[in-house]
Amino acid sequence: MKNITLIKLGGSIITNKEVPMMVRRDVLDQLVLEIYKVRKNTDDLFIIGHGQGSFAHAPALRYKTKEGFISDDSVIGMAITQDSAAQLNRIVVNNFIRHQIPAASFLFSNSMVTKDMKALHWCKDVLVQYLKKGLVPVTCGDVIVDEKKGCTIWSTEKILSYIAQNMPTDQYRVNRVIHVTEVEGVLDGDNNIVEEISRDNQNDIKKMMRDTKGFDVTGGMWHKIEESLELADQGIQSVIISGMNKNNLLNCLSNKEFIGTKIILKR
Amino acid sequence: MKNITLIKLGGSIITNKEVPMMVRRDVLDQLVLEIYKVRKNTDDLFIIGHGQGSFAHAPALRYKTKEGFISDDSVIGMAITQDSAAQLNRIVVNNFIRHQIPAASFLFSNSMVTKDMKALHWCKDVLVQYLKKGLVPVTCGDVIVDEKKGCTIWSTEKILSYIAQNMPTDQYRVNRVIHVTEVEGVLDGDNNIVEEISRDNQNDIKKMMRDTKGFDVTGGMWHKIEESLELADQGIQSVIISGMNKNNLLNCLSNKEFIGTKIILKR
Repeated sequence: MKNITLIKLGGSIITNKEVPMMVRRDVLDQLVLEIYKVRKNTDDLFIIGHGQGSFAHAPALRYKTKEGFISDDSVIGMAITQDSAAQLNRIVVNNFIRHQIPAASFLFSNSMVTKDMKALHWCKDVLVQYLKKGLVPVTCGDVIVDEKKGCTIWSTEKILSYIAQNMPTDQYRVNRVIHVTEVEGVLDGDNNIVEEISRDNQNDIKKMMRDTKGFDVTGGMWHKIEESLELADQGIQSVIISGMNKNNLLNCLSNKEFIGTKIILKR
Repeated sequence: MKNITLIKLGGSIITNKEVPMMVRRDVLDQLVLEIYKVRKNTDDLFIIGHGQGSFAHAPALRYKTKEGFISDDSVIGMAITQDSAAQLNRIVVNNFIRHQIPAASFLFSNSMVTKDMKALHWCKDVLVQYLKKGLVPVTCGDVIVDEKKGCTIWSTEKILSYIAQNMPTDQYRVNRVIHVTEVEGVLDGDNNIVEEISRDNQNDIKKMMRDTKGFDVTGGMWHKIEESLELADQGIQSVIISGMNKNNLLNCLSNKEFIGTKIILKR
């Protein structure tokens, strides 16, 4: 039985607040280096997912790609959005390789068909073989072909959550999902980090986030928490940490003290 | 029943004779434009495959990626080779999109597992859905994870040939495979273009190619002919044409006169 840690490289490496299609290469370098350091001293396996920041989000919004084929330019819009996602995937994979980590793209666009946004066929064979052969699969938020709607979008969170719940359980155990963001975790009204979220306090957290200016309740942070609570129900812990603090990911992966929010099964 | 034409963009758009990782962008532009012109006047479907020229061939040779995991650096070599292949795939897909053709990567690295270089699992769901939804799948020679050897390489020819033989026959008929190269077809000892190759004259052709200086009998052209003869046995015609002559691909696709070699079922 092998442990798998899923790591989402999110807003820390790409941001849609600044220049379009900008990667924070210094942060990406640092995070990959921290993964490298942990990986050489463990038998645990890693699957990486990255967000899309200003890469695929811009065409996805323009063409409403998540909604499917709704107008004449939806098909070309699907192609453009997916190409943008794959471009960023190349940058990330290439960075891992330059740090001597044998990373390989594993794209949900190439292995998943949905029907009305729900999984219909998923081909996990390549992913399982990559893990067996010592590769580090790198997936990302992606455009998925949808039997009914034409296409849709699955977020990185949704994809990692799907992987966590659909790996062969006789061989692999996903023990943790780590969301590496550009904030220090979930912050309360006084900007203190919420240490733990579970089904017990989820309503308070949601209300607090709705009331606090600057939080994006519909997408972003709440989406991460929702996907994480679903995983927590199945005993898979998630953490939301900042990738901007040097060695925070390293500490988190090494089970040392780190700054962030844990989403756990209520006790 | 829908007709599918498979088009391999080979040495015409990328060459390993000149600068490493060089794409002949003017030739690629022209060929994509010719495909665009044909595509807008037909219901036929297209699947594109591109070779790797000096992109993935260089690391593939260095790490002997086709032979699998044979040394300590085979795993990182696999990752590097596949990343190079995927980089070129992005350039080609992006070119199609800029010509208003909704192209999408369909990578065999992400959908095929081999065992001792032979197909073990192939996930065709995404490919079939792409065709149904009006997308133009773009595949390429790729690194495949191999259950036994670790990894291997499938050439673009092998991949297109596999697709031709494994599409659902109740919905699709592959009617032709077009190899777009940098030569005008198969040339005889006097540099004349061989018009037709079939099981009838294959031995003469092979002998002639072995005797003629400048032909690569082990790989390149003979490999194309071999894969094509196998398809011819099943009634699928292949043609080898030059992509360097303007409108030659357009003429070939439009069933007008073109310069090249046909590989056909013997009559």
